[in-house]
Amino acid sequence: MSDFIGSRSKYSGSAPSSPVTIALDAMGGDHAPESVIAGAEIVHKEDPSVRFLIFGDEGKIFAQLGRHKSLKNSAKVMHCDKHVRDDEKPSVALRNSRGTGMRAAIEAVEQANADAVVSGGNTGALMALAKTTLKMLPGIHRPAIASLFPAFTGHPTVMLDLGANVLVDAETLTQFAVLGAVFAKSQRNISTPSVGLLNVGSEDTKGPDHVRSAAAILSQVTFPGRYHGFVEGDQLLMGAVDVVVCDGYAGNIALKTAEGAGRFTVAHFRKAMKSDPLALAGGVLAGFALRRFKKQVDPRLYNGGVFLGLNGLCIKSHGGSDGIGFASAIRLAVNLARHGYIGHVAEDINNLMSQESFLAQTT
Amino acid sequence: MSDFIGSRSKYSGSAPSSPVTIALDAMGGDHAPESVIAGAEIVHKEDPSVRFLIFGDEGKIFAQLGRHKSLKNSAKVMHCDKHVRDDEKPSVALRNSRGTGMRAAIEAVEQANADAVVSGGNTGALMALAKTTLKMLPGIHRPAIASLFPAFTGHPTVMLDLGANVLVDAETLTQFAVLGAVFAKSQRNISTPSVGLLNVGSEDTKGPDHVRSAAAILSQVTFPGRYHGFVEGDQLLMGAVDVVVCDGYAGNIALKTAEGAGRFTVAHFRKAMKSDPLALAGGVLAGFALRRFKKQVDPRLYNGGVFLGLNGLCIKSHGGSDGIGFASAIRLAVNLARHGYIGHVAEDINNLMSQESFLAQTT
Repeated sequence: MSDFIGSRSKYSGSAPSSPVTIALDAMGGDHAPESVIAGAEIVHKEDPSVRFLIFGDEGKIFAQLGRHKSLKNSAKVMHCDKHVRDDEKPSVALRNSRGTGMRAAIEAVEQANADAVVSGGNTGALMALAKTTLKMLPGIHRPAIASLFPAFTGHPTVMLDLGANVLVDAETLTQFAVLGAVFAKSQRNISTPSVGLLNVGSEDTKGPDHVRSAAAILSQVTFPGRYHGFVEGDQLLMGAVDVVVCDGYAGNIALKTAEGAGRFTVAHFRKAMKSDPLALAGGVLAGFALRRFKKQVDPRLYNGGVFLGLNGLCIKSHGGSDGIGFASAIRLAVNLARHGYIGHVAEDINNLMSQESFLAQTT
Repeated sequence: MSDFIGSRSKYSGSAPSSPVTIALDAMGGDHAPESVIAGAEIVHKEDPSVRFLIFGDEGKIFAQLGRHKSLKNSAKVMHCDKHVRDDEKPSVALRNSRGTGMRAAIEAVEQANADAVVSGGNTGALMALAKTTLKMLPGIHRPAIASLFPAFTGHPTVMLDLGANVLVDAETLTQFAVLGAVFAKSQRNISTPSVGLLNVGSEDTKGPDHVRSAAAILSQVTFPGRYHGFVEGDQLLMGAVDVVVCDGYAGNIALKTAEGAGRFTVAHFRKAMKSDPLALAGGVLAGFALRRFKKQVDPRLYNGGVFLGLNGLCIKSHGGSDGIGFASAIRLAVNLARHGYIGHVAEDINNLMSQESFLAQTT
């Protein structure tokens, strides 16, 4: 192992551009390993202190690394014969995981050889393997998937859960608030992120029981965020809050609906711009501005679902993403690791669950 | 009462442009009664066979009607001293409802003096009053709010529930499928609408119990639609199905998120078009096409939440809507009445609930 292995400082944050090691599952994703290596190269150019452990078919990986000479010196390739297939059920993948790059990359985090793992592979298998290998943080029953999305304020919003658990109780939603607030702090320079619960109205009486109970708890406890109240679907992209908390059923539906509505609007707009010669000419003139617009809301810049609640950092990249998308997922990992996410959040969850106002309402 | 009163044919559809009477709560909405009368005027011009019973302050109503001479002959004004305030709690509104235009308009439907009621007033109060006055259809435990929204196919999609009930069981979701399918048939010329359940994935194993159970029932029963399977948030606006069924928590969040994402995209795009002189010029050239684009996705054209499951037709217009928006809500009412919605759906719900495959999975 090279000298940068073992740089993981699990329970404390490290300074910006201090060495950090990211384990990559090189074979996960539709365009792997090309997209994975291209993503690593982008991050490496921005920040040469980031180092990589790359797990997968070494022949294919070296073929890609050959085109990225400088990255090669910051990376170590760990050959793995097998890899988890996209169509494998999590239970099957778990049984057959020995020798796969995905498992080896997760184990690198568990063994403190890497600070975080990033994979674009089978989501269910990654979650199952990460849970089994990294285990849950003390006191947390269910992990959540969190992601950033663009907001009109210009600052990305954190949202969780995006589908790890379809229905959860009030206590779990409260834990999600802590997991999400610390995540927001790791990605943005804010000391007390505002946290909202996704609901169907702003009044106290609105919404399902578990959401109203979570609101009652969050109004009383001290946690590393500021409870804002309920937020509705149309406020999500306005940046009304820094962190949006909900169960995985609502979160997954909201996120995918927002993506779909964005695509729908752009497609309709494109159709309109091609509908008459004047508009077509207008489109050409506006081309530069439109490309900038597209770049601002480029979903690749928000790629990466972070598995929160585990005792180690694991980030899922979208399977279809290219190098630009994969680089975004790696950046999430680097920021979380540098911020000492696991240590901070373990402490904050412990603080939450020992407060009388929490205990009174959950037991 | 004028001769057009009593035209309601509750249990059978009537031919296109046969007389239909719509009761209007003239004082409900931010711009009432102006928006209400303007909406009635738009529909009256399209279809002079639609007649109106207009409930509210007759002084204010006649002041508006004076500007719409032809409409005046198709309308009868019923003076009401009181009206339900927007900030009144449903329980309070219910107690104080005697003498309000909202209640009188609903009673006109209950007494078969009108075929449907349209109100832009307090949603909670309208639902409470409609439930108490019109009662539920036999076998239905909970009403749902349904609405149309634009889809990329060009045909609007029906979605329910949009917030009447935050959480429901599988049996109720199955009833929503029937309520929604017959609604789709009333608004579009389709004999067997496709119906999808909103979920977080397309596989059978995905999602909450009540959604998976509803899927199992809908795959086996005969109902006035064709069960398509699960649909995800990003497919909603693609027009993947004619009817989308979900609980009111998910439905409200999806609808509002789609609205917010559409506004977000348009606002970002506008900002880009104003960002440099070339783009500004391009925007001018493309002006006509852009206005057409805006018109296609104009939320006013999709205004109107229909309370389904009641033994009478009640449509909620958005409180902030203008005449164009209010006209859309009235059109929903006219189509439902002409299609004989209540009679058809009562029969179809009865058919659903007497099928062995339904009974086996719900009892």
